[in-house]
Amino acid sequence: MTPEYRRLRVALLGAGAVGSQVASLLLQHGDELADRAGAVLELAGIAVRDVNAPRDVDLPAELFTTDAESLIVGADIVIELMGGIEPAREYILQAIGSGADVVTANKALLATHGPELFEAADQVGASVHYEAAAAGAIPIIRPLRDSLAGDRIVRIMGIVNGTTNYILDRMDTEGADFADVLAEAQRLGYAEADPTADVESYDAAQKAAILASLAFHTAVPLEAVHREGITGVTKAMIDQARDADQVIKLLAVCERIDVDGAESISVRVYPALVSRTHPLASVHGAHNAVFVEAEAAGDLMFYGAGAGGIQTASAVLGDVVSAARRHIAGGTGVGESTRANMPVAPIGHVVTRYQITLEVDDQPGVLATIAGILSDGGVSVATVVQTVVDLSTPVAEPGRSTGTGIPTALLVIGTHRATEQALSDTVARLAESDVVERVASVLRVEGE
Amino acid sequence: MTPEYRRLRVALLGAGAVGSQVASLLLQHGDELADRAGAVLELAGIAVRDVNAPRDVDLPAELFTTDAESLIVGADIVIELMGGIEPAREYILQAIGSGADVVTANKALLATHGPELFEAADQVGASVHYEAAAAGAIPIIRPLRDSLAGDRIVRIMGIVNGTTNYILDRMDTEGADFADVLAEAQRLGYAEADPTADVESYDAAQKAAILASLAFHTAVPLEAVHREGITGVTKAMIDQARDADQVIKLLAVCERIDVDGAESISVRVYPALVSRTHPLASVHGAHNAVFVEAEAAGDLMFYGAGAGGIQTASAVLGDVVSAARRHIAGGTGVGESTRANMPVAPIGHVVTRYQITLEVDDQPGVLATIAGILSDGGVSVATVVQTVVDLSTPVAEPGRSTGTGIPTALLVIGTHRATEQALSDTVARLAESDVVERVASVLRVEGE
Repeated sequence: MTPEYRRLRVALLGAGAVGSQVASLLLQHGDELADRAGAVLELAGIAVRDVNAPRDVDLPAELFTTDAESLIVGADIVIELMGGIEPAREYILQAIGSGADVVTANKALLATHGPELFEAADQVGASVHYEAAAAGAIPIIRPLRDSLAGDRIVRIMGIVNGTTNYILDRMDTEGADFADVLAEAQRLGYAEADPTADVESYDAAQKAAILASLAFHTAVPLEAVHREGITGVTKAMIDQARDADQVIKLLAVCERIDVDGAESISVRVYPALVSRTHPLASVHGAHNAVFVEAEAAGDLMFYGAGAGGIQTASAVLGDVVSAARRHIAGGTGVGESTRANMPVAPIGHVVTRYQITLEVDDQPGVLATIAGILSDGGVSVATVVQTVVDLSTPVAEPGRSTGTGIPTALLVIGTHRATEQALSDTVARLAESDVVERVASVLRVEGE
Repeated sequence: MTPEYRRLRVALLGAGAVGSQVASLLLQHGDELADRAGAVLELAGIAVRDVNAPRDVDLPAELFTTDAESLIVGADIVIELMGGIEPAREYILQAIGSGADVVTANKALLATHGPELFEAADQVGASVHYEAAAAGAIPIIRPLRDSLAGDRIVRIMGIVNGTTNYILDRMDTEGADFADVLAEAQRLGYAEADPTADVESYDAAQKAAILASLAFHTAVPLEAVHREGITGVTKAMIDQARDADQVIKLLAVCERIDVDGAESISVRVYPALVSRTHPLASVHGAHNAVFVEAEAAGDLMFYGAGAGGIQTASAVLGDVVSAARRHIAGGTGVGESTRANMPVAPIGHVVTRYQITLEVDDQPGVLATIAGILSDGGVSVATVVQTVVDLSTPVAEPGRSTGTGIPTALLVIGTHRATEQALSDTVARLAESDVVERVASVLRVEGE
């Protein structure tokens, strides 16, 4: 049944937190990825410094090699997840030179040597993909490069470092000191033993350089990014901000500005006061978000997990699929891929929670009757709240009373998860019941 | 200085709220768009039913024609913004047949005839772009199709109709009735005179079909979407939700579900209860948002304006640039475009607001001295709050007192916007002043 796909050789450089997840997902979801890419993505090998080092994920030992250069030769797609400048830069240039497309999450390298790599790729018609380098799993590269290509971006404000957002958020919600929260973050693995790259905003500055380059179609060298860390943010500053309905966030700001009549850009990273009503103020914990102001599109926000091995692996694999689509002939990557072609289930199969509000007779035994109907329908009750309706309501008002003189109660029933079929059948039976005057409302509960 | 770009002929079908903005931006930002696309985007003409009809935007009369078919012949890119099924479908098929790439925002057409159009395009290697069809200006198509192509999407919950979100939001914040809010929305232009497409969720159902098709790589016919409107949502239901810390939102839910052991999908649109702590609960007014849950990437949210002529035009033009990049030889559209190459300004040129917190001597004349320093530095004061610091603080504590026995006051100064240069020079002068004991903190205020 599977179409005859071309095979593409994928070389992976690095097997750290992200690399090992990428390898694992490539092996695990091979068929599905082949359908998405229109090509079989064959993991040819994983280059590491030490083949015997412990990994986050179990991977076949025969995939590992210390010989990155041989692995790159003959690869169609090279995924660089080693980090650092050298030898990552050298390997990427080798990959481009041998005709491979490159996927990387290396923000330090892109922020310092991006133009060199893109230039090399352009000369041979190769591509460099880096969705994972700017805001982890949040898709921000394609929106900036493609979706907003017909617009003029005015300003980007990004929370692009999860560690510092976690620290500032805890300081805000717990009234704790910087040093205490940092120590706790280190204990929990949210911050590195040497937290300098995060708390002094080196990481955020690299991401800011990448975002600004894309947004303003301008090479932004890392040295041009104004950088301040969060080590000077005190409990007193945060308390003061809270009193003024503000919050302190480490922001990467990329902005179009006017300098003596010339259109220029500014790229800066510093802790700043943000109003509690701003969407960025509600980005909590280690989450990231990028707020974009564009002339025509208006305000946009992209929100999600900023880091984490598996989250970043998602972005890397998206790039791998894009690179593969480019590789196969005629693959425009623009039309619909409907190769999964799953059946669309009728609503009856959906499993959800209901909140059912009933107007019932307020007399003994009613709850038992209703509970019986629910139980017979296979619907389990999570919560019941009963309120007696205002008895001053005139009995003549339609739907408010049975007219028998029995007072009316309002019963709000929260169900456990059940199929729509079971739920809607049960609601129909409730509506028919003698003790139910009216089904006042039925709503699904989503997002739990 | 401008590179010699190839010219691409762009045909525009329709000059309504979105079409007239697209035409205007194409004419206005021609040079910039050429740099982005690597090709000159020449607006060859605008096909309309009545060339003399009033337009939202002034456009050259000679561009208008009633002869769409002649306009399509010879076009490299055809932008379809007429809406409706016919003749839009016919024109798009003609455009594909004559080798053009197509950009459309026509959700009704895509939800009903999408597979036919994509199939026709695939056969000749043309592309159909439709970023504007699913959530207005919010980039969601590329993230779903490309960025998340290596992941498995579990569930999408979208607020994809601005009118109904506006109505439900007003009912929630003002405790108003559906009918009253609808009437007001119609007066303000947020709702159509015939609101059926919005309040009965036809519009949201079309968008849900498009999102589900993309997310699950499956053709989702519009008839398979379970659809319920918001006309049955009462003030009582909203009040009850509020009391339970919930909010009622019209959600488009696209979900991977298991039906008798077979992997299936469910696509449904209905008003549902959402906890106030869920990110979707804080999507107010006519805004849209799409919340995506993916296996590896975790939770993502995309937020922005859902509709509006100029906002939607931004998404359309992004698609036009993508289509143009595909058209030009060797244009991978993946490498960095740095053709704008604007200068990166040093931090001193940035214009922002400061909040300066000073510990000062609490004696007469101090405020005047400080105001003088600010004024001399060209920094205008917006707010000043003075608090006397707890006098029980021992005088010996470093930085808490001048040691002269004069009590210390805390002065929080909010400045108006000024350049960083002026602000930082002024802060330096404040720090040197005899009346200032300590500059406790200096923070920029962003996001205003």
